[in-house]
Amino acid sequence: MMTKEEIVEGFRQLQNSICSQLEVTDGKSTFIEESWIRQEGGGGVSRIIENGALIEKGGVNFSAVHGATSEHLRKSLETNADTFFASGVSIVLHPQNPYMPIIHMNIRYFELSGSQWWFGGGIDLTPHYIDNEEAAFFHQSLKHTCDRHDEAYYPKFKSWADDYFYNRHRNETRGIGGIFFDKLTSLHEKDKLHAFLMDVGATFLQVYLPIAGRKRDNSFGDRERAWQLARRGRYVEFNLLWDKGTRFGLETNGRVESILMSLPPLASWIYNALPSPNTPEEHTLQQLKKNIDWIHV
Amino acid sequence: MMTKEEIVEGFRQLQNSICSQLEVTDGKSTFIEESWIRQEGGGGVSRIIENGALIEKGGVNFSAVHGATSEHLRKSLETNADTFFASGVSIVLHPQNPYMPIIHMNIRYFELSGSQWWFGGGIDLTPHYIDNEEAAFFHQSLKHTCDRHDEAYYPKFKSWADDYFYNRHRNETRGIGGIFFDKLTSLHEKDKLHAFLMDVGATFLQVYLPIAGRKRDNSFGDRERAWQLARRGRYVEFNLLWDKGTRFGLETNGRVESILMSLPPLASWIYNALPSPNTPEEHTLQQLKKNIDWIHV
Repeated sequence: MMTKEEIVEGFRQLQNSICSQLEVTDGKSTFIEESWIRQEGGGGVSRIIENGALIEKGGVNFSAVHGATSEHLRKSLETNADTFFASGVSIVLHPQNPYMPIIHMNIRYFELSGSQWWFGGGIDLTPHYIDNEEAAFFHQSLKHTCDRHDEAYYPKFKSWADDYFYNRHRNETRGIGGIFFDKLTSLHEKDKLHAFLMDVGATFLQVYLPIAGRKRDNSFGDRERAWQLARRGRYVEFNLLWDKGTRFGLETNGRVESILMSLPPLASWIYNALPSPNTPEEHTLQQLKKNIDWIHV
Repeated sequence: MMTKEEIVEGFRQLQNSICSQLEVTDGKSTFIEESWIRQEGGGGVSRIIENGALIEKGGVNFSAVHGATSEHLRKSLETNADTFFASGVSIVLHPQNPYMPIIHMNIRYFELSGSQWWFGGGIDLTPHYIDNEEAAFFHQSLKHTCDRHDEAYYPKFKSWADDYFYNRHRNETRGIGGIFFDKLTSLHEKDKLHAFLMDVGATFLQVYLPIAGRKRDNSFGDRERAWQLARRGRYVEFNLLWDKGTRFGLETNGRVESILMSLPPLASWIYNALPSPNTPEEHTLQQLKKNIDWIHV
């Protein structure tokens, strides 16, 4: 059965391979790297890219932290365990081009008191402009990955993503969702679950690179840029108001700049801005709903 | 003793007089007004100004809402009361000029089950560039207002503002604070407390107009604008992560666009951006601390 060390090593390698490939694809900027140590135990390696040809701001972070559970953490996990270990890879990429979607991936491993353990993670897409063909490709790819491991996964995890990436104060999904899962654990199947997790990790580039190839050079003007900045405002709202991962990081005294790498380089809030009828912007807003079958839309 | 209706009427009048004066002072833009009704009871009048000569985006909102307490509200107020009433005026102004501070004021009245009641509120200042003379004027003015009612108020409410307007994940105050108070109640002194509250309301223009007069036309360039956008990012972090008023509004199904009028028109997040040594930007960062005696600094 996979050891904790092997799981962590897999995360490190995934960070390396994704960063190498993204640099080649971006073609202009490279990642800057910062290693950090958490006073209470563990640390991480943050890699950030800014002002690229493709990526305006993005982060591919690895961390492995451990220590005593805080009262707050015990409460939120509903546990009495006194120590925890958490490791994972987190990615958020904010593209330059408004026709390119924002993408997010996270895979993680969690242990409580060295005995209880689980995997969690997911990939989801936040297009500034929803493109049904791209949405179908994205969800179909995630379904393929899931189906290789368990046909029950995609429907369950797709619906979980709809519920999780939800700006409830606006009755609006963050984007077109994807898959989200947490607390995957099974006494005799740790290796099988780990294989699924790493397959999700591998799926990231398999979906992102084709999307980038199609969209990165679309021409756009001030109108599309303004809409992109407004949609990024919604992304900020979700991450700071509702994202449990962000809260977890801030409450376990994680490295603030690494956690908040998910925030966009520039975002806007215009009062009560609503798109005009029958525009691509309105088409996008109308489709920010749960339970859309993106593969067949 | 003041009735609920008289208190609400005072709030309405304050909104009117502040908006009239701010329009004259801005000289370019005027407020747009939207009245809204809350399905579960009550409503409000939002007034928003955008792209002014002085104010890039600002809101002066009045609301008076009532209804059944949600489970969440009962929990956060530690009460079993089944109905609530809340009314107040909230102001946030994001200036064009980075040398002008962001200002926030709120005064509010709260009732539970029609019997328990209290006042709350405050004024605080968030300079992009801290100016010690301005800070002394601001705090001295608040102290004057407080002292007219109770000499114990200023020290207590100043310290409360330091604790409240705190970005705890960054160990950084939001700005130079001001005064903050909540749950002011006293069975036989409702009128006295109300007089203090309205005096705080009147203090808003008394401090803002002189500051605007001194700073609105300071010349600035790309460097100051970039710093302003970064500091606005911190403002967003506070309001979405820690501000109880924002949470209260979103959780009582308030009008989202009115609550989030506090968010800036444009904000940035640059990875790990730190000011160079011995710059006004660094001077500001170093003073974002609790317990500074701004009157004598």
